[in-house]
Amino acid sequence: MSNSFEHLLSKRALGMRKNVIREILKVVSQPGMVSLAGGIPAPETFPIEDLYRINETVLDRYGAAALQYDLTEGFAPFREALAGYLANKSISADAESLLVFNGSQSVLDTLGKILITPGDIIALESPSYLGAISAFSSYSPDYVSIETDDDGIVPQSLERALDQQPVKFLYLVTTFQNPTGRTLSAERRKEVAEIIKTRNALVIEDDPYGDLRFRGQPAPALQTFAPENVVYVSTLSKIFAPGLRLGFCVAPPLIREWLYRAKQGADLHSNTYAQALATEYICGGFIERQVPKIIELYRPRQEAMLAALESHLPRDYRWTKPEGGMFIWVEGPPGVDAEQIYWRAVERKVAFVPGKYFYIEPDDGLPTMRLNFTRVDEATIEAAIATLGRVIRHNGG
Amino acid sequence: MSNSFEHLLSKRALGMRKNVIREILKVVSQPGMVSLAGGIPAPETFPIEDLYRINETVLDRYGAAALQYDLTEGFAPFREALAGYLANKSISADAESLLVFNGSQSVLDTLGKILITPGDIIALESPSYLGAISAFSSYSPDYVSIETDDDGIVPQSLERALDQQPVKFLYLVTTFQNPTGRTLSAERRKEVAEIIKTRNALVIEDDPYGDLRFRGQPAPALQTFAPENVVYVSTLSKIFAPGLRLGFCVAPPLIREWLYRAKQGADLHSNTYAQALATEYICGGFIERQVPKIIELYRPRQEAMLAALESHLPRDYRWTKPEGGMFIWVEGPPGVDAEQIYWRAVERKVAFVPGKYFYIEPDDGLPTMRLNFTRVDEATIEAAIATLGRVIRHNGG
Repeated sequence: MSNSFEHLLSKRALGMRKNVIREILKVVSQPGMVSLAGGIPAPETFPIEDLYRINETVLDRYGAAALQYDLTEGFAPFREALAGYLANKSISADAESLLVFNGSQSVLDTLGKILITPGDIIALESPSYLGAISAFSSYSPDYVSIETDDDGIVPQSLERALDQQPVKFLYLVTTFQNPTGRTLSAERRKEVAEIIKTRNALVIEDDPYGDLRFRGQPAPALQTFAPENVVYVSTLSKIFAPGLRLGFCVAPPLIREWLYRAKQGADLHSNTYAQALATEYICGGFIERQVPKIIELYRPRQEAMLAALESHLPRDYRWTKPEGGMFIWVEGPPGVDAEQIYWRAVERKVAFVPGKYFYIEPDDGLPTMRLNFTRVDEATIEAAIATLGRVIRHNGG
Repeated sequence: MSNSFEHLLSKRALGMRKNVIREILKVVSQPGMVSLAGGIPAPETFPIEDLYRINETVLDRYGAAALQYDLTEGFAPFREALAGYLANKSISADAESLLVFNGSQSVLDTLGKILITPGDIIALESPSYLGAISAFSSYSPDYVSIETDDDGIVPQSLERALDQQPVKFLYLVTTFQNPTGRTLSAERRKEVAEIIKTRNALVIEDDPYGDLRFRGQPAPALQTFAPENVVYVSTLSKIFAPGLRLGFCVAPPLIREWLYRAKQGADLHSNTYAQALATEYICGGFIERQVPKIIELYRPRQEAMLAALESHLPRDYRWTKPEGGMFIWVEGPPGVDAEQIYWRAVERKVAFVPGKYFYIEPDDGLPTMRLNFTRVDEATIEAAIATLGRVIRHNGG
């Protein structure tokens, strides 16, 4: 007897897609592969030496409380620490308004769970973060794409989308976006805030990369211009350690209440011990020393990639020049198929992510690619981009 | 302008209930309250001293790998360690078939997500674990109750339920059940296995308490009799530390594949560092020394509670006498309202959970109560049950 249980699957399950990037990452784990594909922090950025001390402090200070069941909203000392940290970035949040989740992916999933009824329309910047699409898609929404340019989403395109149909929410990464590296400009943030306030629309502002600024001045979070309309989502994955799965959000009261309720049923609460580690990482002053070190590691890698692109890519290619983050977005001329380039590059031991995966419409973004610069050193980046340049020229015929 | 966003909530959200026990636990955190309400391990059972060493070993041995993004299915060394641990309990599992989640609550939520289309029928033993009901309810199923007696679910009642309607799955806690403390007998396990194999039915076997055996011989997991029909779910919360949120399951291949896919979209993967700690807790031999200590702490507490019930409760009350676990289930004569007893007991600084919350039907279980014996010492238990006895006699008039 075959127990496939295929007939038992929910309708919802059939809407779930495999995360293509994570699938691609499996392929590129071959020995010798230079991966510009992931969105993964360099392991050198993890404060391992500090963690010997931080662990002791946590066990001394919190003891059993760090190991016990805890509040659904998150470990109180961690929420206090986070609120202070966010205040430095002038984000309106207090410990009471914060909710802690298992990584920001889990915030996105839970937002999808409480907001999306199948067929609801979600607005996404185009291209958009794949993990968000993957989280939302399991609740079977439809999508509408918002146009973007080098300053982020185009306000007129957003206005049109909101006026033409009921939109449950807009999801966007406001700073050093994944996949493009683009930042919504300060001017645009004010315009977007006005648009959503006028229409009483809800926005999910995802900000995992904002602290990784190599140059230039930060713009205030969109949330600061429209706190009642924005769920601000962030994570310690890029500035502490992703393996600890520490995401969080600040949400308007009703959304917060339903996120709380959904999380209570879904996993009771997030890892107490990891939250205690993060409390000491923030309050013990470790984070202030560590983030500049992370930036000093990534900045020259990004500069090396920008220089190498200038040297090795054909003149009809263009790319973003972000002031921080983890990604550069390359766009070839019309007719280029970046997936074809991908397979040839992988043969030569260089991997990246073909950009089309970040679009909702199947034919969009064919000539685009996402390049990550955080995992490999400058010399390797130069060599990898040189290889990519050769593949592109050969591919182009 | 009021941004209540009430109109944005998904249909699904409206099905979510607050976890009543967690709400009750908030009330009983008043100073001086003796709580027999929770299902929470005694903090003395956490291996805090060992954790100083285990943390060092993890940082020495795994370094950055313990802090990095990791596989959705779980940290490979942890799955190896778990497979070995489960083999000792003769549960059929290998590292490949295991999936690690944020506590077993998150396994239950994800099973609900991939299996339940609104209106599907889920079979529950009556009474049943509230956390499971809360996890499943967010996917809007209907429920059918299966009768139970002192040996667990009644096979004939299960047969009837499976034959009368399409049932998506049966959920049950096979050993030292929450809330009753009852164990499905070895004989019954074989009968249930036959029933589900014949009908190609799916069962979720939740086993969080099986290791907390104070006396008697364990029966093999239901999963061992019907591995192709059973998702075996367990956790390290009761034998290591609940704050680490380490749940896991062994599932038939297709269910495993969809759990994997759903988890990838929901939170990418579980806390790597906590999994590394648990790997060393198991492989370093700590668990073998710790579990007997936990049992030696709980056994006299349970004996004290059983003796106190004998001394202080009226003769028309009966209660379970489990060979382990965390709970005793008390049932008063018809007409008793345990919630009334609850409020009077709370006034006298003794809390428990009125049993009716563990039933699907609103009028079931009115005279029942769940008593937890793991959090307080023997003398306090004797005094608390004496108080409860007085409240009951007074209440009864």
